[in-house]
Amino acid sequence: MSQVDPQLDRIRPVQWRDGALHLLDQRWLPDRHESLILTDSDAVAAAITDMVVRGAPAIGITAAFGTVLAARSAWQQAGADWRTAIEPALDRLRAARPTAINLAWAIDKLAASFARIDGDPEPELLAQAQTILDDDIAANHAMGALGAAEIGQADGVLTHCNAGALATGGYGTALGVIRSAWAGQRIKQVFADETRPWLQGARLTAWELLHDGIATDLLVEGAAATLMAQGLVQWVVVGSDRIAGNGDVANKIGTYSLAVLAREHGVRFMVAAPLSTIDRQAASGADIPIERRAADEILQAGGQRVAAEGAGAWNPVFDVTPARLVDCIVTERGVVHHPDKAGIDALFNAS
Amino acid sequence: MSQVDPQLDRIRPVQWRDGALHLLDQRWLPDRHESLILTDSDAVAAAITDMVVRGAPAIGITAAFGTVLAARSAWQQAGADWRTAIEPALDRLRAARPTAINLAWAIDKLAASFARIDGDPEPELLAQAQTILDDDIAANHAMGALGAAEIGQADGVLTHCNAGALATGGYGTALGVIRSAWAGQRIKQVFADETRPWLQGARLTAWELLHDGIATDLLVEGAAATLMAQGLVQWVVVGSDRIAGNGDVANKIGTYSLAVLAREHGVRFMVAAPLSTIDRQAASGADIPIERRAADEILQAGGQRVAAEGAGAWNPVFDVTPARLVDCIVTERGVVHHPDKAGIDALFNAS
Repeated sequence: MSQVDPQLDRIRPVQWRDGALHLLDQRWLPDRHESLILTDSDAVAAAITDMVVRGAPAIGITAAFGTVLAARSAWQQAGADWRTAIEPALDRLRAARPTAINLAWAIDKLAASFARIDGDPEPELLAQAQTILDDDIAANHAMGALGAAEIGQADGVLTHCNAGALATGGYGTALGVIRSAWAGQRIKQVFADETRPWLQGARLTAWELLHDGIATDLLVEGAAATLMAQGLVQWVVVGSDRIAGNGDVANKIGTYSLAVLAREHGVRFMVAAPLSTIDRQAASGADIPIERRAADEILQAGGQRVAAEGAGAWNPVFDVTPARLVDCIVTERGVVHHPDKAGIDALFNAS
Repeated sequence: MSQVDPQLDRIRPVQWRDGALHLLDQRWLPDRHESLILTDSDAVAAAITDMVVRGAPAIGITAAFGTVLAARSAWQQAGADWRTAIEPALDRLRAARPTAINLAWAIDKLAASFARIDGDPEPELLAQAQTILDDDIAANHAMGALGAAEIGQADGVLTHCNAGALATGGYGTALGVIRSAWAGQRIKQVFADETRPWLQGARLTAWELLHDGIATDLLVEGAAATLMAQGLVQWVVVGSDRIAGNGDVANKIGTYSLAVLAREHGVRFMVAAPLSTIDRQAASGADIPIERRAADEILQAGGQRVAAEGAGAWNPVFDVTPARLVDCIVTERGVVHHPDKAGIDALFNAS
């Protein structure tokens, strides 16, 4: 454990320092600012499963550094046979959480270079992992500018969960758009769903935005429809854990509800996500695995048991928003309006 | 304080015993089963404001007994001038919460008899208050039968907040329908929104239904759209705090969202409420006052502060569902399909 300065100027949830992975432990924010210092890839997998780190891009970056640690261990144990020795550890990393495609994307990206590495793999893989982190932050700034331009001028925007600096290498996807729009005086007010059961909106998004001086009001998910009916927001801006090849969007449970409500109220719906979140192997949202987590996440609140003994809970933690309800997907390589397979494919062919 | 047997066969949140009003303190359920014993109408008003008792019909019944206590005090202090002396106390009762019309309805019902009472008003008013309680329970049983017949056969139903025995004299409005449907083997599974910020679904509805052996799974509000998309529920059944003359329905925040989602998914939407909840003075939902409560209700969860210091909150605690999204309103006097002014008026003209 290390103490993190709560007044840090730039929020960086995943960092490599002195040969170790430092993860800001998001389970205790905003109360406690502590980092886990990890040097073992299985501990990295556990940290992903346990939501020390969350948010698809941040999970991907973490998995990249986890791969570095797995390679270090495999090299120490098996020398030149490290490529075989590393596989079980990579399988455990890949299985840490099912929905965010960035996890497998990052591991596969590093694994694709294994064959050409000579000798100790750590320096080369570490450089690649650091590049993934740096590229992610750069992508978020690019998305921020593109997304803010899409917004034009608005009174208010609504976001869900936390797709911010804490969910990425830094700056954020949806919150990157919101940061850019705020900096450009394009929006006056941010509303954030508290986002049960983990309360990422209350605990993480409000903290991040207040850190940057951005006016933020929390609401319960049940109030979003009334917020829209009263005309207080013109855009919903969210991130994604995986986007299918046809533009269907998997994201935190509650996102699909917002998309239906937005369409009903003439509110526009934006998804901001890097290309690493797009999984063209998934033809549609039906091909995206949706994680279900323990009932206890719902049976308790704020660390206290609240529900009657014996109550069950239905706890899918992601949902799928069909592409037809998405007005635009903002990536670092451009904006796809009215997303469909052709629009998604065009992003990749434009490189 | 008195201890209430947690194994009570029949849940009765509001009772008059030995000259005092006993209110089951719902703020601590399901952990602690305690009743407040009140003999002062201002304490009754405070109990309503503080949500010791909640649910529109239960608030109405409580206000009726509060009127009895106000009359006792006025008689003791002013004798034959009690009708004047009682008014300030009744004004404070009326102002205890703004949205549930049953509060004013019950007070006005008793007040309409003041002129013809001779001598000590307490015995006559107490008999009337007890009749309001008894009639409410009878109305709930009537609605239960009517609502269950509307459902026909279904796999699952979704309810929101708590419109159960705890929100009424006993048996419940929406949960009365669910109890009757369950008893008649018309439904197989109940889903209950946990209902932030007060978690009435997790704390009260799950407890009530488990008490009756009815299979209940909780979900976060954000998951309701996915529940519907997966075909797990065919009906949404809710109560109401006030129904306007055109059939617009005020109910716990989150209800309007469910109505939009139900329409999108071909799920039917039922409101169960006694005639005392209908306010024909309100031409439409726009005329219904919507209570906003303290930001702290959202900034904390399970009694623990969760949001970052400095975060604001937007906390309307009721919303309005337009009549066009309501498939039927079930009252003790009959069912109004596709509610509108004519349908609502017909209920009252049928007496």
